[in-house]
Amino acid sequence: MNLNPYRHLPPSELRRLIRRGELSGPTAGLANGFAQANLMIVRRELAYDFLLFCQRNPKPCPLLDVTDPGCTEPLRAAPGADIRTDFPKYRIYRHGSLEQEVSDITAFWEDGMVAFLIGCSFSFEGALLANDVPVRHIEDNHNVPMYRTNIPCQAAGSLNGPMVVSMRPMPADKVVRAVQVTSRFPAVHGAPVHIGDPRQIGIHDIDRPDFGEPSAIGDDEIPVFWACGVTPQAVAMQAKPELVITHAPGHMFITDIRDEHMGVL
Amino acid sequence: MNLNPYRHLPPSELRRLIRRGELSGPTAGLANGFAQANLMIVRRELAYDFLLFCQRNPKPCPLLDVTDPGCTEPLRAAPGADIRTDFPKYRIYRHGSLEQEVSDITAFWEDGMVAFLIGCSFSFEGALLANDVPVRHIEDNHNVPMYRTNIPCQAAGSLNGPMVVSMRPMPADKVVRAVQVTSRFPAVHGAPVHIGDPRQIGIHDIDRPDFGEPSAIGDDEIPVFWACGVTPQAVAMQAKPELVITHAPGHMFITDIRDEHMGVL
Repeated sequence: MNLNPYRHLPPSELRRLIRRGELSGPTAGLANGFAQANLMIVRRELAYDFLLFCQRNPKPCPLLDVTDPGCTEPLRAAPGADIRTDFPKYRIYRHGSLEQEVSDITAFWEDGMVAFLIGCSFSFEGALLANDVPVRHIEDNHNVPMYRTNIPCQAAGSLNGPMVVSMRPMPADKVVRAVQVTSRFPAVHGAPVHIGDPRQIGIHDIDRPDFGEPSAIGDDEIPVFWACGVTPQAVAMQAKPELVITHAPGHMFITDIRDEHMGVL
Repeated sequence: MNLNPYRHLPPSELRRLIRRGELSGPTAGLANGFAQANLMIVRRELAYDFLLFCQRNPKPCPLLDVTDPGCTEPLRAAPGADIRTDFPKYRIYRHGSLEQEVSDITAFWEDGMVAFLIGCSFSFEGALLANDVPVRHIEDNHNVPMYRTNIPCQAAGSLNGPMVVSMRPMPADKVVRAVQVTSRFPAVHGAPVHIGDPRQIGIHDIDRPDFGEPSAIGDDEIPVFWACGVTPQAVAMQAKPELVITHAPGHMFITDIRDEHMGVL
């Protein structure tokens, strides 16, 4: 599906189309200027550990909103939205295994569940483009490549796991500007966590991402890596809680928060 | 007591002197270059609400460290330190009332308590001074003035209350630079929350702060207000939990975290 015709619709309208199933693909490039969000839903008894995990790992898990237990409306990030229906695609993880992908989690929602909305690097891609830093997966219209790394997250209670990163290749003369532009946005992963050789962070085949799709890297280009909000899924796989619900990588929630409001200066 | 002779001691040495009772006053200006921290200790059953309160109110409550339940060592902010003895002065609040101030909380510590270390604006005062922005309470060697405002915090579970702010007066031609300098440090309250007329944020007598001591304001000076880590004490007074333990305003914990590491760029 070519998402471009929808690019300039407001967030509430895009969420309505997604809720109806009329939009079901990756959301990169949609609702330019508004923050998108990763999802992690846990039962109440795991909520403290996960909230603490986010506090201890703000690069991969910058929180945009946390719902009250049992509440399906993200009151701060998108009043009126429904966490159970307004993502294009969800993943159900049981005991650390991906059980299925669904487009609606109403049947899986339990009283007392808590939803965490986590900032997404799509938020700073508009700023990169405005600074003439290329964003390959938007140019080539595919999902951003994401990789499990050997960078350990700080544990919190029962939760631990490796950091997941997203990657954008670019010419060497764009790297400094990319660091500057994204440093302004710590609430959406901020500055890169690594520049250059993927093996230094435990990525051994850059052409085979763990999530999303590979990006072509030109001969003179350097891969630049940002902490990624898919990290909670790597944590779920490692810590194996009985049930967690996430978004499908790249298939994000579109909030009412303007990207620019998250710039620290 | 004149604290100046201790100004350049390393954090661990200062904590040792504080633990022994050899330093007992406000900590502004001590351990230049290292972050200081506010304290909020709650029982385990209130920890989720308070952690969520901090997530929803990052300006007054930027978290530097959260201990594991029952652990008295802040493993990330100051390995080897003891949360029960290493502040110069503590406050015991019961049912929202200040019961007493003590220099050691070993007798009050309960198994399962959780300690929250919250960033402190003292961290950016070095940066202000380096930029020739005056810091009156350091010049005049008194505790920073702090005020309860009419700015409501976002509630979290049972917790709610007004934002507390600290105030620094300065000439008009320093205000822009003060905003720029402090914007770099969101983990220690970041940019000001208000500039100018105190009444607009519910402060009716600038010469009578709710915490700390008043600063002299020159005729041509403008008061500039930053969110303050004493906010949890205003929350304790309003929400009235059975028992919370905090630091005494201005009497902070000196961490091993370098201020500059908290600069977002």
